Amino acid sequence: MAAYDLNSKWYALRPRRAPLSHDEEVKEGFMKALAKMYTKEESAILCTQWLAFANLHGPTFNRVEVRSDRATLAQIDPIGFRWMWHGKDALELRDGWTLSLYWDVNSEDAMQIDVEEIQEGLVGVPLLEEIWNGPYSNASFPVYAEDIDAGGSASPSTTMLSEVARSKGITIVGGSISERNGDHLYNTCCIFGKDGELKGKHRKIHLFDIDIPGKISFKESKTLTPGNTPTVVETDVGRIGIGICYDIRFQELATLYAARGVHLICYPGAFNMTTGPLHWELLQRARAVDNQLYVATCSPVRDITAGYIAWGHSTLVGPFGEVIATTEHEETTVIADIDYSLIEERRMNLPLGTQRRGDLYQLVDFDRLNLENH
Amino acid sequence: MAAYDLNSKWYALRPRRAPLSHDEEVKEGFMKALAKMYTKEESAILCTQWLAFANLHGPTFNRVEVRSDRATLAQIDPIGFRWMWHGKDALELRDGWTLSLYWDVNSEDAMQIDVEEIQEGLVGVPLLEEIWNGPYSNASFPVYAEDIDAGGSASPSTTMLSEVARSKGITIVGGSISERNGDHLYNTCCIFGKDGELKGKHRKIHLFDIDIPGKISFKESKTLTPGNTPTVVETDVGRIGIGICYDIRFQELATLYAARGVHLICYPGAFNMTTGPLHWELLQRARAVDNQLYVATCSPVRDITAGYIAWGHSTLVGPFGEVIATTEHEETTVIADIDYSLIEERRMNLPLGTQRRGDLYQLVDFDRLNLENH
Repeated sequence: MAAYDLNSKWYALRPRRAPLSHDEEVKEGFMKALAKMYTKEESAILCTQWLAFANLHGPTFNRVEVRSDRATLAQIDPIGFRWMWHGKDALELRDGWTLSLYWDVNSEDAMQIDVEEIQEGLVGVPLLEEIWNGPYSNASFPVYAEDIDAGGSASPSTTMLSEVARSKGITIVGGSISERNGDHLYNTCCIFGKDGELKGKHRKIHLFDIDIPGKISFKESKTLTPGNTPTVVETDVGRIGIGICYDIRFQELATLYAARGVHLICYPGAFNMTTGPLHWELLQRARAVDNQLYVATCSPVRDITAGYIAWGHSTLVGPFGEVIATTEHEETTVIADIDYSLIEERRMNLPLGTQRRGDLYQLVDFDRLNLENH
Repeated sequence: MAAYDLNSKWYALRPRRAPLSHDEEVKEGFMKALAKMYTKEESAILCTQWLAFANLHGPTFNRVEVRSDRATLAQIDPIGFRWMWHGKDALELRDGWTLSLYWDVNSEDAMQIDVEEIQEGLVGVPLLEEIWNGPYSNASFPVYAEDIDAGGSASPSTTMLSEVARSKGITIVGGSISERNGDHLYNTCCIFGKDGELKGKHRKIHLFDIDIPGKISFKESKTLTPGNTPTVVETDVGRIGIGICYDIRFQELATLYAARGVHLICYPGAFNMTTGPLHWELLQRARAVDNQLYVATCSPVRDITAGYIAWGHSTLVGPFGEVIATTEHEETTVIADIDYSLIEERRMNLPLGTQRRGDLYQLVDFDRLNLENH
């Protein structure tokens, strides 16, 4: 059982698949991210995770350097990547030190990783965005789909997540990727425990089928199959409920999670330029305030050259519906404390749970009923 | 059955009980309200309603004048009040004309009426605030309580509302008043049809019992008894669901109303200076966007000398969660169109109703089940 009184850091890892125009641009982005680090541990963990992502998805590194303002303090060749991967604090950056990376780009389609978040100690819930292993489009879902159940090389994205979770000893809510299972494709979020084990797999329950003429039209159901179960995961950083993007529109799912004792609902999501400004923050705040729990979202950055343009604005909302941390649509670092004791406090302030009128209405959770009956 | 394709005007009537310090102040406030009128019909109706309120609750009029910028165009003595009451368009204000009122103040506790809204033609839903027949306090609820079922002089507030509804041929959602029924007190909203008949009576289901230390603490349950039924009323301006203030915190009630085909939920409410800025608009927008219907609220003005200080901000929200009309905390006129065709349009854009996963969750509406079983 999780130690729910732990205060937790929430953060987001945001890989973005985009052509690498030239090394300098990428290097600059990474340096910028590093400039936001506070401690050597944070820097080391970031570097390690970033390298792990990049190695599996993107370019091959040919040089890694740790530098102070002027001098190169350490160099790690491509083999060094493995060494960093396995060793905790292997790469000890000191205050004022920075890390530089040089690599060869494999192809224009190489993954550019913009790691956007950090952790304190090893407590934290990295949350990734929706469909981070490929472009968000019906055409791309089958192309990038991975066989999560088969694992290993059949699902490099989740294999990597599992390894990061285990090696760093952290819980990861792995955004979502397109999953292939037999003849079906799903929009799936995997949650890995600190031992690297798959703790839960949420297949998007409510597919994104909308049509706002002249604005946005999308039918996920053209290619995807919906999942059939709500997902609640016990972790070392609380009981976490999962929804993916459009799932957030259905208040029943959040209410059902709250009734199951969830502390934090994570919604990887890619709202668009129409529904984003209208509803993205509103829905997060509504789920949080109605159910008096935390809501965390992670969106892709806005890429106006993409077929589907994401709104951005990853956000953490507290149990009073208050925005604790948010961001614009560009790559940035969002760090926020999650204090679970606030949940109890808010529920003492406004005891909505006991004030509900179960004699007048009740939300039936069929999945829970089935679980209890079997 | 109501003609639901009617476009409707939503507006709020806001009586406020406060000492009348001197005539000029009151006159000024009313002149200010009048300055926002557009047509003679609107002005006439406002005056009539305002006079009806004032006559029943407050000071005795000794003079009513209709003026152009400089000249007095008409005078109506106290008898004229009755005449205005029964005659449609009896008081014909022209562009540039204003109405002035002079009266004797009966007591410091006389009701000051600030009529804040108008209607176009005779289609509209005036919505009054929560507990408009007295101060909002546990001490005052018994003092001001009226026996609605007995009617007549036992309930001057609802008798007046009924007469206004009938004489003007409009539907009125009568905010709420403290109601006495046998040994019980309720926080009750009465809805009158255009024939003056009581169409529905909503007793606040969820009593306002909250405790935010150092901020706001209130226990309605000290004096009030909760109602036991959701309230849906068929009117000539749509199917209307009612909630009172704290009722808005329970998303189940709104969802249940939506499932019953409600077009507009009216929440008379008096959020306070703590929960108002945090949640008042958020909750309205959440109920509207989740259920794809209209939400209208009416709050008392903010009186910083009152024991319970209201947040104000009466608002109309559309079925996309968009704020169509709102106001600050002072007396003002809010006019807004309600276009019910937007409900269907939004439900076509985002077919949340059919996308709900009834196989995974269902909200049971016990009251409806009981109705159907009997």
